[in-house]
Amino acid sequence: MAKEKRVEQITDMEVDFAQWYTDICRKAELVEYASVKGFTILRPYGYAIWENMQRILDGEFKKTGHENVAMPVLIPEGLLKKEGELVNGFAPEVAWVTHGGSEELEERLAFRPTSETMFCDHWSRVLHSWRELPMLYNQWCSVIRWEKTTRPFLRSREFWWQEGHTIHETAEEAQAETEQQLNCYADFFEKVLAIPVVRGRKTDKEKFAGAEATYTVECLMKDHKALQGATSHYFGDKFSRAYDVTFTGRDNTLRYPFQTSWGSTTRMIGAVIMAHGDNNGLVLPPAVAPVQVIVLPVAQHKPGVLEAAGALRDRLLAAGLRVKVDDSDNSMGWKCAQYEMKGVPLRVEIGPRDIENGQCVLVRRNDGEKTAVALAELESAVAEQLRLVFDGMYAKAKKNLDEHIFAASSIEEAKALQEKNGGFIKTMWCGEEACELAMKEQAGMSSRCMPLEQEKLGEVCVCCGKPAKHMIYWGVAY
Amino acid sequence: MAKEKRVEQITDMEVDFAQWYTDICRKAELVEYASVKGFTILRPYGYAIWENMQRILDGEFKKTGHENVAMPVLIPEGLLKKEGELVNGFAPEVAWVTHGGSEELEERLAFRPTSETMFCDHWSRVLHSWRELPMLYNQWCSVIRWEKTTRPFLRSREFWWQEGHTIHETAEEAQAETEQQLNCYADFFEKVLAIPVVRGRKTDKEKFAGAEATYTVECLMKDHKALQGATSHYFGDKFSRAYDVTFTGRDNTLRYPFQTSWGSTTRMIGAVIMAHGDNNGLVLPPAVAPVQVIVLPVAQHKPGVLEAAGALRDRLLAAGLRVKVDDSDNSMGWKCAQYEMKGVPLRVEIGPRDIENGQCVLVRRNDGEKTAVALAELESAVAEQLRLVFDGMYAKAKKNLDEHIFAASSIEEAKALQEKNGGFIKTMWCGEEACELAMKEQAGMSSRCMPLEQEKLGEVCVCCGKPAKHMIYWGVAY
Repeated sequence: MAKEKRVEQITDMEVDFAQWYTDICRKAELVEYASVKGFTILRPYGYAIWENMQRILDGEFKKTGHENVAMPVLIPEGLLKKEGELVNGFAPEVAWVTHGGSEELEERLAFRPTSETMFCDHWSRVLHSWRELPMLYNQWCSVIRWEKTTRPFLRSREFWWQEGHTIHETAEEAQAETEQQLNCYADFFEKVLAIPVVRGRKTDKEKFAGAEATYTVECLMKDHKALQGATSHYFGDKFSRAYDVTFTGRDNTLRYPFQTSWGSTTRMIGAVIMAHGDNNGLVLPPAVAPVQVIVLPVAQHKPGVLEAAGALRDRLLAAGLRVKVDDSDNSMGWKCAQYEMKGVPLRVEIGPRDIENGQCVLVRRNDGEKTAVALAELESAVAEQLRLVFDGMYAKAKKNLDEHIFAASSIEEAKALQEKNGGFIKTMWCGEEACELAMKEQAGMSSRCMPLEQEKLGEVCVCCGKPAKHMIYWGVAY
Repeated sequence: MAKEKRVEQITDMEVDFAQWYTDICRKAELVEYASVKGFTILRPYGYAIWENMQRILDGEFKKTGHENVAMPVLIPEGLLKKEGELVNGFAPEVAWVTHGGSEELEERLAFRPTSETMFCDHWSRVLHSWRELPMLYNQWCSVIRWEKTTRPFLRSREFWWQEGHTIHETAEEAQAETEQQLNCYADFFEKVLAIPVVRGRKTDKEKFAGAEATYTVECLMKDHKALQGATSHYFGDKFSRAYDVTFTGRDNTLRYPFQTSWGSTTRMIGAVIMAHGDNNGLVLPPAVAPVQVIVLPVAQHKPGVLEAAGALRDRLLAAGLRVKVDDSDNSMGWKCAQYEMKGVPLRVEIGPRDIENGQCVLVRRNDGEKTAVALAELESAVAEQLRLVFDGMYAKAKKNLDEHIFAASSIEEAKALQEKNGGFIKTMWCGEEACELAMKEQAGMSSRCMPLEQEKLGEVCVCCGKPAKHMIYWGVAY
């Protein structure tokens, strides 16, 4: 029975949510700590989830005309510092290269914390005419931000992401791009990751360093804390002017293009864990699961069982699914626990009696529901069950979100609601940073976003009582 | 006629091969220099070639069970220095991070020049039993080597690559892996890039720092200089011992696994340029071309022409090809020159007369051959012409290789042959480094490899006259 021990128990999320999260990261073999402090290793299973996310997002970006490029990872200090707000935002977190081989560099080089500066520098040299606009670029890479405290996927000194950078002839086009990419992320969260989001705009205090406007998709985890899913920024022509990016306009005058950037990171894996996971481990949305269907032969020593399991696998592979058979000599109990831990969306069991009856049994990871299906209908039944897995996951996450948005009409009420229920607390707000700071100090919540779908909850700011300008969501965030 | 000027002439390769190469890199919009000395930017067209290379190679790696991971980009100096030979090989070229944010680090961190050390460090913590072997890992990333002189794709301080790292229970399995991956690269060069290669083993002088054996695929460029295409290394258990990577063997004793690594880089784009390009620009193998077919409407203002061109594009897209129509108002002459510069394998022309005759004209980039085909047979005709493009490119490159391998029986003869013809000069060799140095000093050639297919050209080393051990290829290399 020694093997039974290999799938160790993880901490219950109700007992210690943070420990439950870390347990899943380790036990599902997603990440491992590196010997460099604050850095993590994406192990094969974790990286395979990221590859699936990349493939789907990259396809969406390309459908709307974006092209991938690769910019240098090191940015000269002088170049980074040309735009004041950006450098003030990132300078405290930059890792600096000071030596190349045995020589000390004349100018320090920053490991990119983000690449607006490099894209602008490049555009300042290659852009000439309005005919070349828009330039719609993206890159997949890692960045470094020297964080003090780190957690797998959520906050790590190095993380993997994509950063889209575009320039446009007009402000309107750039604003439309910012919005399009925000919606692209929202769709990805809702239709691929099964995580409902709130689309909104960040306050000036919370926006990206140097941006004119930052838009965000905010989601809610199972512990009712908020998580910023992905962001899309509009820069106006601020960076163009700082980096002297110009083009000859239709009217033959020299003009500055309008710019956007937008990014999503391996933090999305953290969002999936905390939006869907349970006390048996990870629960993966089918579209990003490295293995979508695990086939487990029951009483596999009996004649015909392994062959039948192999035949199921081959049919499902032919149907375009990611499928594996586990015919190892581990016990059935161990196998079930193992693939639950790893969040495989659907388990297929087939044993001697099933074969006799011309059927197999499908078991959904998200709710444990079992369905016996005729072998003749395997492909359609599996497709249907995977749809139900997705639908069930989304419905549960949507319920969690919907049931955890509360309106408040004072800081005290906001605080009490947050302490009792967690979630998003919505209030009216005057637009002043002083009131944001008051909410932070008195209720421990940061502003999450001003939802694009505004509601009128009242006339005045709940913090200062002056006329309200926005309805805003507050929360305790990762 | 101003637009006619936009496709500028490039230097003829016969006049100045190096300038011709640089001209293509810039004019085909593959790369641009960055403002960081020695660093380059992969522009959309260059990066799209790299993406195609990645997709194909990654698919091959996965077919043989390899999994992708992501290791930290920074390596602590102490960890890097555990294996003496490796650090001696790379230390002079390492970029060092010394500061994180405002604090000076206690220990310097190296920007990875290669990641054997990180993989070993990880394995030392996660490997326990022979049951977990082999571990077949790969990662796609960039590395930095602080080179003095740089050239786009060929030698750059940062370059993009994949590095495979595997550990195995036995030496035989690791050796088989090294060989399998060498053959994987050779097949990729020959069957995808249309570049014939010589498979061989590097001498001890030229092998990878710390490797027990390095295998290489060597190819020949149009200027008859050699280029190392990709390499595959066998480490024995040297790194396992240095980094204390152990597992419990089948006999219940503690053992060291046997290790390999293998890599290929964006330098392959340089190989494609110099193996196939001509004085009109790039010539791309169909499998890695970002645009495989460009459809050019002739007299596009005439009724029905744009519609016909669009219909061709849609049919070819449906056939799974990467296709574009250029219906810009640039002249036909400019368009032809532009897509020749960019190396698009096949041009499809369709004008009013073609429509009348129910045909279109296919023009091959590699040899300019034109073929009129019936519209009804478009898909099969295009597939056939793309095959002929590949075959023609391969045949030409093979002829160049076959006609530039010369046998020599003395250093003087080797030198004279190299000076007259370039190419690979093959001789017998005793195996001593002193003779390699003599060849380098007296004939200006480095050893390229000891081909796996050995020939017996004589009994003695052409350098020292002692008994020969190997037949070896010499050349002037990129």
